[in-house]
Amino acid sequence: MAPHIPEKQWAQVIEKTGGPVEYKQIPVQKPGPDEVLVNIKYSGVCHTDLHAVNGDWPIPTKLPLVGGHEGAGVVVARGELVKDVEIGDHAGVKWLNGSCLSCDFCQTGDEPLCGKALLSGYTVDGTFQEYCIAKAAHVARIPKDVPLDAVAPILCAGITVYKGLKESGARPGQTVAVVGAGGGLGSIAIQYAKAMGLQVIGIDTGDEKAQMCKKLGAYTFVDFAKSSNVVKDVQGATEDGLGPHAVILVAVNEKPFQQAAEYVRPRGTVIAIGLPAGAYLRAPVFETVLGVKTIKGSYVGNRKDTSEALDFYRRGLINAPFKTIGMSELQKVYDMMHEGKIAGRYVVDTSK
Amino acid sequence: MAPHIPEKQWAQVIEKTGGPVEYKQIPVQKPGPDEVLVNIKYSGVCHTDLHAVNGDWPIPTKLPLVGGHEGAGVVVARGELVKDVEIGDHAGVKWLNGSCLSCDFCQTGDEPLCGKALLSGYTVDGTFQEYCIAKAAHVARIPKDVPLDAVAPILCAGITVYKGLKESGARPGQTVAVVGAGGGLGSIAIQYAKAMGLQVIGIDTGDEKAQMCKKLGAYTFVDFAKSSNVVKDVQGATEDGLGPHAVILVAVNEKPFQQAAEYVRPRGTVIAIGLPAGAYLRAPVFETVLGVKTIKGSYVGNRKDTSEALDFYRRGLINAPFKTIGMSELQKVYDMMHEGKIAGRYVVDTSK
Amino acid sequence: MAPHIPEKQWAQVIEKTGGPVEYKQIPVQKPGPDEVLVNIKYSGVCHTDLHAVNGDWPIPTKLPLVGGHEGAGVVVARGELVKDVEIGDHAGVKWLNGSCLSCDFCQTGDEPLCGKALLSGYTVDGTFQEYCIAKAAHVARIPKDVPLDAVAPILCAGITVYKGLKESGARPGQTVAVVGAGGGLGSIAIQYAKAMGLQVIGIDTGDEKAQMCKKLGAYTFVDFAKSSNVVKDVQGATEDGLGPHAVILVAVNEKPFQQAAEYVRPRGTVIAIGLPAGAYLRAPVFETVLGVKTIKGSYVGNRKDTSEALDFYRRGLINAPFKTIGMSELQKVYDMMHEGKIAGRYVVDTSK
Amino acid sequence: MAPHIPEKQWAQVIEKTGGPVEYKQIPVQKPGPDEVLVNIKYSGVCHTDLHAVNGDWPIPTKLPLVGGHEGAGVVVARGELVKDVEIGDHAGVKWLNGSCLSCDFCQTGDEPLCGKALLSGYTVDGTFQEYCIAKAAHVARIPKDVPLDAVAPILCAGITVYKGLKESGARPGQTVAVVGAGGGLGSIAIQYAKAMGLQVIGIDTGDEKAQMCKKLGAYTFVDFAKSSNVVKDVQGATEDGLGPHAVILVAVNEKPFQQAAEYVRPRGTVIAIGLPAGAYLRAPVFETVLGVKTIKGSYVGNRKDTSEALDFYRRGLINAPFKTIGMSELQKVYDMMHEGKIAGRYVVDTSK
Repeated sequence: MAPHIPEKQWAQVIEKTGGPVEYKQIPVQKPGPDEVLVNIKYSGVCHTDLHAVNGDWPIPTKLPLVGGHEGAGVVVARGELVKDVEIGDHAGVKWLNGSCLSCDFCQTGDEPLCGKALLSGYTVDGTFQEYCIAKAAHVARIPKDVPLDAVAPILCAGITVYKGLKESGARPGQTVAVVGAGGGLGSIAIQYAKAMGLQVIGIDTGDEKAQMCKKLGAYTFVDFAKSSNVVKDVQGATEDGLGPHAVILVAVNEKPFQQAAEYVRPRGTVIAIGLPAGAYLRAPVFETVLGVKTIKGSYVGNRKDTSEALDFYRRGLINAPFKTIGMSELQKVYDMMHEGKIAGRYVVDTSK
Repeated sequence: MAPHIPEKQWAQVIEKTGGPVEYKQIPVQKPGPDEVLVNIKYSGVCHTDLHAVNGDWPIPTKLPLVGGHEGAGVVVARGELVKDVEIGDHAGVKWLNGSCLSCDFCQTGDEPLCGKALLSGYTVDGTFQEYCIAKAAHVARIPKDVPLDAVAPILCAGITVYKGLKESGARPGQTVAVVGAGGGLGSIAIQYAKAMGLQVIGIDTGDEKAQMCKKLGAYTFVDFAKSSNVVKDVQGATEDGLGPHAVILVAVNEKPFQQAAEYVRPRGTVIAIGLPAGAYLRAPVFETVLGVKTIKGSYVGNRKDTSEALDFYRRGLINAPFKTIGMSELQKVYDMMHEGKIAGRYVVDTSK
Repeated sequence: MAPHIPEKQWAQVIEKTGGPVEYKQIPVQKPGPDEVLVNIKYSGVCHTDLHAVNGDWPIPTKLPLVGGHEGAGVVVARGELVKDVEIGDHAGVKWLNGSCLSCDFCQTGDEPLCGKALLSGYTVDGTFQEYCIAKAAHVARIPKDVPLDAVAPILCAGITVYKGLKESGARPGQTVAVVGAGGGLGSIAIQYAKAMGLQVIGIDTGDEKAQMCKKLGAYTFVDFAKSSNVVKDVQGATEDGLGPHAVILVAVNEKPFQQAAEYVRPRGTVIAIGLPAGAYLRAPVFETVLGVKTIKGSYVGNRKDTSEALDFYRRGLINAPFKTIGMSELQKVYDMMHEGKIAGRYVVDTSK
Repeated sequence: MAPHIPEKQWAQVIEKTGGPVEYKQIPVQKPGPDEVLVNIKYSGVCHTDLHAVNGDWPIPTKLPLVGGHEGAGVVVARGELVKDVEIGDHAGVKWLNGSCLSCDFCQTGDEPLCGKALLSGYTVDGTFQEYCIAKAAHVARIPKDVPLDAVAPILCAGITVYKGLKESGARPGQTVAVVGAGGGLGSIAIQYAKAMGLQVIGIDTGDEKAQMCKKLGAYTFVDFAKSSNVVKDVQGATEDGLGPHAVILVAVNEKPFQQAAEYVRPRGTVIAIGLPAGAYLRAPVFETVLGVKTIKGSYVGNRKDTSEALDFYRRGLINAPFKTIGMSELQKVYDMMHEGKIAGRYVVDTSK
């Protein structure tokens, strides 16, 4: 029996850049031939959503816009061409809502680089609504034994750090430093790294974060605020003093983006993931050449990264702490985010 | 019959940082158990040699110092442990005179990163003398059908650009831009790239260089001085307008080191090889992350790169133009180099 | 103006396994939402087509069946979802007519491994008809400066050997042996290998084939019928006597599939492409382990391989000799094929 | 103070092929300039040692011969060129006693493929003596907090399976089947695989082995003797039923070497490590090609693999059960081995 789909639904809508979001009723859309309609149950709130509200990124958003790109729910309708997603399946709507599946990038698993990529909660309506459209080929397949609230943050934060760790080329047994280890992405990155057989150095500041990082699996912690020489301390934290094989930058300010190339091991790789506004990567040519060092950007994961990251989660190896709040209170979350008051992830319940 | 080895020889010696070099007689050394003595016939002159004279690099040189690291000659003596180099073999003494062969880097073919690496003409005496010592494991094996004067520049410039092309990960059929294409390294880079099945865009300035680049194998040329928008023009020079898969930076000034990340294709790689004094790599975090772009330093080749680069040369695929001059006139070459008056490579004849 | 599409067309139809093919009129199909209709101008005839007629492969064919999977033509209609193929574009219909684009394999560029793959001229109707249906995402994009008759054999033979060379991991400058070098696939493999910067050893028999292989770019040739010790001769044909880095098996009998692992270089790779009926790969465990040798199957190319292989062709680096014949005479080609009388490729003209 | 080195020592000597070994006193050797003398404390006993006694491998041994290649001890003397191993260091003497460090293979970290490789207990005297010679560059560096008896089996069995897992290309999160999982190599392979983030299927027979495999980290077990269809059961043990990404063959009979290619996942890799006498790898060409499957030999590890494998051990992630016995009783171990009565590894104490 087909599920009942209402004509109207509750959503949080950005009418103009700068916000605020408005909680109101809007029509439910119908999926196109290659699309599905997902009844979103929970959706994580990410810093990117705040950027979408504020319009402070180089790429413009759709307007009016329904934000959100970490939505987990149940498939309630599908287009005629959709054959591998069933009504009733659990599915996740991610940042990458769709892509052409035909360009050079899509052909090689680099669909996040597709020139025609659709971005949930940015260039198409996202997951801060009860019913959301997404390209069937791109929705995350969520196993039914996975709770829909807890998995929401994995759909963006989890996949992104997992992808960054893959891009780093670090192999099991090698050492990776996570910069911003105590934050939302950082704490998940530590757990993925450990599950991938890597040895983790946490870099952040504060005793609480130090303790948390070690508990999550970091074998040591460097407090950048207490250290008189971060480069020396990070290198000193590795067995042979040559520095970590890879550095994962999930920090929210610019400094580590210009420092990591100094302490990464010769032949090592620095992966930039975080996006501090207006920040630049910077490294001396001489030392970079003589040390054969690599600096590389890593964006969101592709579909395969998604299923792999979810599988680590399903196996109980990743724990992303979150608090649940009604979708109607989304603006409160943005306000706390703006004030830098959030620890862990907020997940909105679309039914409230 | 063992070759005659004199007790004294002519050499060009740097007595103090800043120069000048002194042409005088010094003793011939004896090889240690794992070393060979090479009767250098010809030695190329590289910009690095001028840096060694001037002492303007972050690493100090030995003093007094015999410079030179592109030496080609004949093995005349060997230590007791040397079994795979014979007296009479042709051999090349390169920048990497020796390394420990035991550290993590040496174990994985990254001997240029060895913490105990010996550098010819920098931390040990080099090839601007008639008889030069080198670790047997590190001398280049030069086939006897290869002329010793013409191969000298391959021993540094050739290997270095070949290594950079390998590090770029560019595959046959893909597109690579060579920045500084009309210079010494650049003109060799074009030829190696072509021999490796790559499609080459030359970037430099001047009609003469444009013509030369195309003759050597570049399918197109971008004149950075004439272009009103280098980024757009380089991307426009590729079939789909997305930019080259790799960029090889052998330029001598800083600007392209900060511009290449803009025009390289998403998922592409920028390889820094040239070492403009005090230069920095720089790239915006946002575009680097969203484009999944890589910036990487590439240093000199290892032993395997050496034999591979020499093999391309032996097969007639590489032509590095050079002028020969007596070793006694080395200072003249430095003077011309200082004034930026050199086109192609100078090779000194150690017998004159 | 939309092109005129007739209701009926000429086709070669296999009514029952074992053949013969019947030349008759059948209806023209309409493309589904994600499909295109291609007016096939020319179609190459491949050994696989004969297997489809004879039904002697482990996988059953559709019946009745229109064979053919090397079709080149013009797009005359497209479904509503198709956005990146235009009416009037030149397109190729390949063995891989379509795939799900969603499974693990499709997600990682391994669409030939898709469990729901549609195979032209095998599980769906192919290119021995005037108008053929194919999934838009899978048709080869053929540049308009490329002749449609000459490119037809590239769509299967060309892509397949190019893929095999990629799968071998052989790098520019390394040596690859092509077994069956004088045949249809072999002669194309030599040219792709050369264009990819590889050094080629041709292996086959007969002076005519020897001459042809050398003309196409092989630096040497081993005649397996004249050789008293093929293993020794192939290894002896390499600079250091250790054997080629890779072996490409496009032979039509079993013996080389069991011999190649012996002469491939330690750490080398044997790539099986050809499909002799009922043949087995076989290699001694001891020598395979101590030589760290790899034996690997390589199937047809994916979409990216297709565009890359076509680009080599477009650049004039590949020449695949062919003869043209009217589609009505297809059975004659099968007869000649059955008798082993074909040198080079036959291409049928669908208008005759 | 230099350690006291006696002139005579106890050793187990094979005077003639077929044995038996003789326990007697022989002279202590002096290290050459690039060698060390290691006072062996413990040495593991491997099946290969029995092959050396019996002379039933295709390569002949030195005679008379001191066997053994899993020796752990203390460095007591070193040659004049040795700079990175100190007197008093703990060191391991492995199968690869030395290699030329200069050939193509040694240059690229493939020193086990070196044509001049020296093999401990096979082509040079090994570790069943109190004082053993080895090339300094090749001895394993054993951290002092690691017990010398327990680490002995890691020096061969541990490194070998770790290497095989690396060669398989399996990534963290993927699935690997270990065939012969209940044996000496197999039980260690399970633990390395788990530490590398892989999911393990154990394949062997018997409830005891099933239980052990699961305890060591396998998520499931297939009993090949109880299974009516091993191929189906192994594939069925994976999430999507397509089979494991890699198969590690450490079995001692031929059958799985001919069966693994059937159940490995398309695009998957079968790694042969075990060496059943006279065994052949065998796979149908058709299925191997259409499934793009890889079959590959993996030999012992190189020096880097050695330090990596030891590091996993040092971190407490690997437990290789062993029994200690006096070196004078080595023949007893061989007798038990011959009768197939050994579970786990025997380690001889050279002082008894």
